[in-house]
Amino acid sequence: MADTHVDAASRLAEELAGIVGAAHVVTGDDISDDYTHDEALTTSGQRPLAVVRPADTAEVSAVVAWAAEHAVPVTARGSGTGMCGACVPQADGILVSFERMAEILEIDTDNHVARVQPGVTLAQLDEATAAVGLVYPVFPGENSASLGGNVATNAGGMRAVRYGVTRHQVLGLTAVLGTGEVLTTGGKFVKATSGYDLTQLIIGSEGTLALATEATLRLHPRLTHGATVLVPFPGLDEVAAAVPRIVGSGLQPTILEYIDFITMGAITASAGLELGVPDEIKDAAMAYLVVVLENRSDDRVEEDTAELAELVTELGALDLYVLPTHSGAALIDAREKAFWTAKAMNADDIIDMVVPRAAIPQYLAAVQQAAADTGSLVVGCGHAGDGNVHLSVFQPDVPTRKDVVGRVLRAGADLGGAVSGEHGIGTEKKAYLAAIEDPAKLDLMRRIKVAFDPAGILNPGAIFD
Amino acid sequence: MADTHVDAASRLAEELAGIVGAAHVVTGDDISDDYTHDEALTTSGQRPLAVVRPADTAEVSAVVAWAAEHAVPVTARGSGTGMCGACVPQADGILVSFERMAEILEIDTDNHVARVQPGVTLAQLDEATAAVGLVYPVFPGENSASLGGNVATNAGGMRAVRYGVTRHQVLGLTAVLGTGEVLTTGGKFVKATSGYDLTQLIIGSEGTLALATEATLRLHPRLTHGATVLVPFPGLDEVAAAVPRIVGSGLQPTILEYIDFITMGAITASAGLELGVPDEIKDAAMAYLVVVLENRSDDRVEEDTAELAELVTELGALDLYVLPTHSGAALIDAREKAFWTAKAMNADDIIDMVVPRAAIPQYLAAVQQAAADTGSLVVGCGHAGDGNVHLSVFQPDVPTRKDVVGRVLRAGADLGGAVSGEHGIGTEKKAYLAAIEDPAKLDLMRRIKVAFDPAGILNPGAIFD
Repeated sequence: MADTHVDAASRLAEELAGIVGAAHVVTGDDISDDYTHDEALTTSGQRPLAVVRPADTAEVSAVVAWAAEHAVPVTARGSGTGMCGACVPQADGILVSFERMAEILEIDTDNHVARVQPGVTLAQLDEATAAVGLVYPVFPGENSASLGGNVATNAGGMRAVRYGVTRHQVLGLTAVLGTGEVLTTGGKFVKATSGYDLTQLIIGSEGTLALATEATLRLHPRLTHGATVLVPFPGLDEVAAAVPRIVGSGLQPTILEYIDFITMGAITASAGLELGVPDEIKDAAMAYLVVVLENRSDDRVEEDTAELAELVTELGALDLYVLPTHSGAALIDAREKAFWTAKAMNADDIIDMVVPRAAIPQYLAAVQQAAADTGSLVVGCGHAGDGNVHLSVFQPDVPTRKDVVGRVLRAGADLGGAVSGEHGIGTEKKAYLAAIEDPAKLDLMRRIKVAFDPAGILNPGAIFD
Repeated sequence: MADTHVDAASRLAEELAGIVGAAHVVTGDDISDDYTHDEALTTSGQRPLAVVRPADTAEVSAVVAWAAEHAVPVTARGSGTGMCGACVPQADGILVSFERMAEILEIDTDNHVARVQPGVTLAQLDEATAAVGLVYPVFPGENSASLGGNVATNAGGMRAVRYGVTRHQVLGLTAVLGTGEVLTTGGKFVKATSGYDLTQLIIGSEGTLALATEATLRLHPRLTHGATVLVPFPGLDEVAAAVPRIVGSGLQPTILEYIDFITMGAITASAGLELGVPDEIKDAAMAYLVVVLENRSDDRVEEDTAELAELVTELGALDLYVLPTHSGAALIDAREKAFWTAKAMNADDIIDMVVPRAAIPQYLAAVQQAAADTGSLVVGCGHAGDGNVHLSVFQPDVPTRKDVVGRVLRAGADLGGAVSGEHGIGTEKKAYLAAIEDPAKLDLMRRIKVAFDPAGILNPGAIFD
């Protein structure tokens, strides 16, 4: 068996070297551990037969066509910062890594569009757009994430309440189907009704329908005046009641996060952050809203902040703190690192359920019930404006952990929610999705997959079996 | 043949009456002419075997399941205001008309969501949302249009530059597949990554994948302070250069339209509208921008208008007119009626190509070349911020008309555009799409259609053959 494996690997390496060059094919023990996993807490990773690093769309196409012919699974990888195992390779498959396709092809300031290769990171794009007063507004909390990975998972993040998620920014794609065929979809325009929207179908498909090799992205004017406001509330009901009022006010918050007091304690402690909230307020605050307001001048930001203060006072806030620039940025940064804090605290799984935002208190009550019923600890924070609740689950016993996660996801689905708001399903949440989702819908998705990938080689086992 | 047709029709009527009740099935000469056509200028319409008016999703499902079993084509119809023949029934088919499914099921002010049946009109929804300070921001120019039709064509309109198009507002659907199966997709949330986005796939599919029987729509805060600003320019190049600067300024115009001087003359004359532009400016103005600015207070609207004035002066505007409220509304109304003006002037076809917005001048130069080459008159206006160009084609000779339309669409495609921005393809533009689009992409769309509609009964002949 081992010999067969070695033979298969060396034959495959030779064939792939013919496409991308021997320097860009790695096999066996030369494959770095980094390629075997993403950031999902529940997977131990997997070594593929080969890692291949194509230089362009034509090479990706040739690799996939070869794989289709030989029925070899293909998994795409950007920066490997995913949360659900969607870029963990198959033992008998190829990992296509986009590190050599990491160029910003164009920043078009007339059409407010960027064209990027999939390996470009959010940090790279942010630097390039900042230079021309524009912004790509998706900040999922990890700036080393790649645009290809963001497209595959439909990445979100804190600014989605104002700008939407990846889906709302991607105007077009170049993509390689499971046959090796190359498609271009969309273009430098926001609207079109010219056949089915293949762009939108590929976004969020976690590498199971096609490999994106280029993306056309919408850019927005970069706002440079802003304020970060911290609002403690006595409880989550008050937070939940405040959210639609803030969104409905037209203040257009760029960020509207809730953080429970346990998570607030953890992330501020871990960042060594002192926000100037007096102890008596801290003691009374069961939940916080973090609101970032941005506008076109300092005057407008000040006016908006005053209006927010009036509104939240009326809505039962304990107080309101306009944070100094440095602390504000540090708090947002600490919130973005909440996952790492949870990981450092040995969280056993993470959940990013989305529910109708008004259902958040009801959902969190159900979550606490599930935690209590199973002797687990479940804490979190979330994108309050979007109803996207991030939870860390502490439960070392695997069957019990699966039980509590299943209950927590079922509770959200019963309130009209979806299993994942932005992390995706991958391999790690697919059993839960299968248990919750309408089987007819999953069957339809399987039929759609066949239309893109008749040989079934693209990321098999992700999203559904 | 005629007898067979009558027999088939009466047998079909009986079967359908068993599902929706005899009062809601119409056949033969009892079918009103209204049901035979939409507003496309190039189709003469078609009478179906039967019109059926279901009361709910279960009845739609039963009708479609029956049709699938008997291989009878099914075409869905909302208000019949489409522009591309997508709701023109088949002679041997059923027309499903949604006039009995026209209820607003819910306006949810906490989640900023409306749930509607497909027959609800934009006017109905606008009235209901206005009452609670919210807005459904898609105004395609025809308020009698139905939401079901808007979903089928991914309707756009003038406010898309700020709010996006139908695709950006639809959060979830209940939809009946070509098998009669009922799916629910999405929910009361803006983001999700939980399998393929079936909502987005169905939007814009012109009734070929599924019949939407309920839609969950995103609502926005309704802004009540605004100004309509008219800006004459010496030429289209100046207009095109101004557009990205205005969008990039962060002023967030709600409307950003260009109108050429011929179309401006026609629509103001047809509306009896005097905008107070002096003759010497009129004589020098080859193109106009109409900009609507909205904000949360009159002060901010005034500031924004002053900033716009400074910007457009710098960009070569001949002048700037802040229109009195009444004239501003009348101009927008006249612009929305541009189609009817064109129709009254006996236009032979209309086009709504989308191109990268910076390519508009280059595109319009190519359009004028195609018009000159074929002895045709082609004039227009458009959603400048979106690159969505609306053209009226005057050319009574059918082969020559097809030639000029083909050239105009090819010219836009060569600039990276798409055949339709918001009208759709239907039956009337599909030959042009087939001539321009990558055959591999159309084949993929056909395979996707099979996944939804294995019997091929849903609106056959729309989008592609």
